Amino acid sequence: MEIEFLGTASAVPSKQRNHSSISLKAFGEVILFDCGEGTQKQLTYAHISPMKIEKIFITHFHGDHILGLPGLIQSMGFRGREKPLDVYGPKGVNALFNAIQHIGYFVINFPLNFHEILEEGEVIDNEEYIIECAFADHNVPALAYSITEKKKPRFLREKAIELGVPIGPDFGKLHNGESVIVDGQEITPKMVLGPPRKGRKITYSGDTRPNERIVKLAEDSDILIHESTYDSSDCEKAKDHSHSTSKEAANIAKKANVKQLILTHFSTRYTNTLTIEKEASEVFKNSVVAYDFMKIEL
Amino acid sequence: MEIEFLGTASAVPSKQRNHSSISLKAFGEVILFDCGEGTQKQLTYAHISPMKIEKIFITHFHGDHILGLPGLIQSMGFRGREKPLDVYGPKGVNALFNAIQHIGYFVINFPLNFHEILEEGEVIDNEEYIIECAFADHNVPALAYSITEKKKPRFLREKAIELGVPIGPDFGKLHNGESVIVDGQEITPKMVLGPPRKGRKITYSGDTRPNERIVKLAEDSDILIHESTYDSSDCEKAKDHSHSTSKEAANIAKKANVKQLILTHFSTRYTNTLTIEKEASEVFKNSVVAYDFMKIEL
Repeated sequence: MEIEFLGTASAVPSKQRNHSSISLKAFGEVILFDCGEGTQKQLTYAHISPMKIEKIFITHFHGDHILGLPGLIQSMGFRGREKPLDVYGPKGVNALFNAIQHIGYFVINFPLNFHEILEEGEVIDNEEYIIECAFADHNVPALAYSITEKKKPRFLREKAIELGVPIGPDFGKLHNGESVIVDGQEITPKMVLGPPRKGRKITYSGDTRPNERIVKLAEDSDILIHESTYDSSDCEKAKDHSHSTSKEAANIAKKANVKQLILTHFSTRYTNTLTIEKEASEVFKNSVVAYDFMKIEL
Repeated sequence: MEIEFLGTASAVPSKQRNHSSISLKAFGEVILFDCGEGTQKQLTYAHISPMKIEKIFITHFHGDHILGLPGLIQSMGFRGREKPLDVYGPKGVNALFNAIQHIGYFVINFPLNFHEILEEGEVIDNEEYIIECAFADHNVPALAYSITEKKKPRFLREKAIELGVPIGPDFGKLHNGESVIVDGQEITPKMVLGPPRKGRKITYSGDTRPNERIVKLAEDSDILIHESTYDSSDCEKAKDHSHSTSKEAANIAKKANVKQLILTHFSTRYTNTLTIEKEASEVFKNSVVAYDFMKIEL
């Protein structure tokens, strides 16, 4: 799994920070979280092919989180994409889809599916991972997302041999959840697999005031990516604009018992992020500040 | 007058080249020609305040020429802009305006006027300059634009003194086109001004096949900015996609008797622009290749 920050600015971009977007390379695909203006160019810098992106999760419909979508979609069409693209977002995603279809002349040859998420909970549950969401607390409908790997239980090789399973393809079948017949007797996966194992988990807040729903969603995450538009000196601004301070983000990380907190979405009012990092680290030790093209291997 | 190239790529951006946009600082304002995705960030790099942009001229509605508009407009609103913004474009500009208004949540507090241009000829004629347009020859409705400075005739100081005009404010009035009364006799501007003078002229083709309408529009320009998506080895592709090669652009420059040709809008298929520049220079000597953030003082 590799997380790469493609944009870490808030509403106004700077030389160093593009608008919000995070890529996740995992499970043989690329998943994007948010897609601010200029994301297609950031992907070029990051050597990530837009053609490998299969799903895009949008947290909310403020320009700094969505305005890269039309260009990315048009660019995929221009390059002759054929495989589907699935875009998920809160209430309003269909209106966005409609607007995107009317921005200039272009041809989309591939299946483009927009999915409106109206409830908290499971969004995707496939063989390899679960994606869940919770309502964030912003000034427009907004979601936070988590992705949790489904890690297979360990295969108890000795146990299988003991039960007479011949070394070979049956081992794979059992590990993949299929029963096999050995000497007329059924051997089920449960008989040769260890206890369930916890997979890797990543949570992304999007834009939000600190809230308990995100604490719950982020519980025991390996990484929590939480917005920190402001430092504590601007805590009133954070309230007024429905954002979080670094301290507030760190408190969420602490309550949710995550392993690492990565702060992002910084206001251009700060010439550096030293105070933001310091304040967060005082509350939650393992806090770091994201920058454009920062990569995290997990 | 200062021209700055904010983006010189064609449909797909590269590390070095952003999508199309050209800024013109002149007459106390900033005018943009096209506004591809990422233009607001390019403006940051170029130290040009979006708040100073008064007019945007769009050549046509392909993504690489327009997808920076929603972000730029939203960003102006976010920064509390009050003065109007005027956006000009060919048939379809009102549909674009409608789509832009429905891309996510945002507030526009300033007058935002979209102007649909349905005929060739004069678009703006004010005290300082004339902007004209001609139909380009692309695969969607497209316009080329020219801007011509209105240069005041020279003030014939000796003639004014000879006619008895007292040295002082009356000189300014006459130079600005007002008559004055000297010893009961009317002195008109015509009596103290030299012959009309040619102001500076810049023409921008947008995306187009080479055509005579642009030759006419560009006649005697100081600078012709012409697209050159391809070099001559790809002349069939240029025809197929309604673009121009470097040689074709240079031929337009020659026919239009311009002083300088600046080529832009390059396909990412070329690792460098040496062939493009060489081919153009063989046809029209004063040809140069634009790059992002190239500035031309005029």
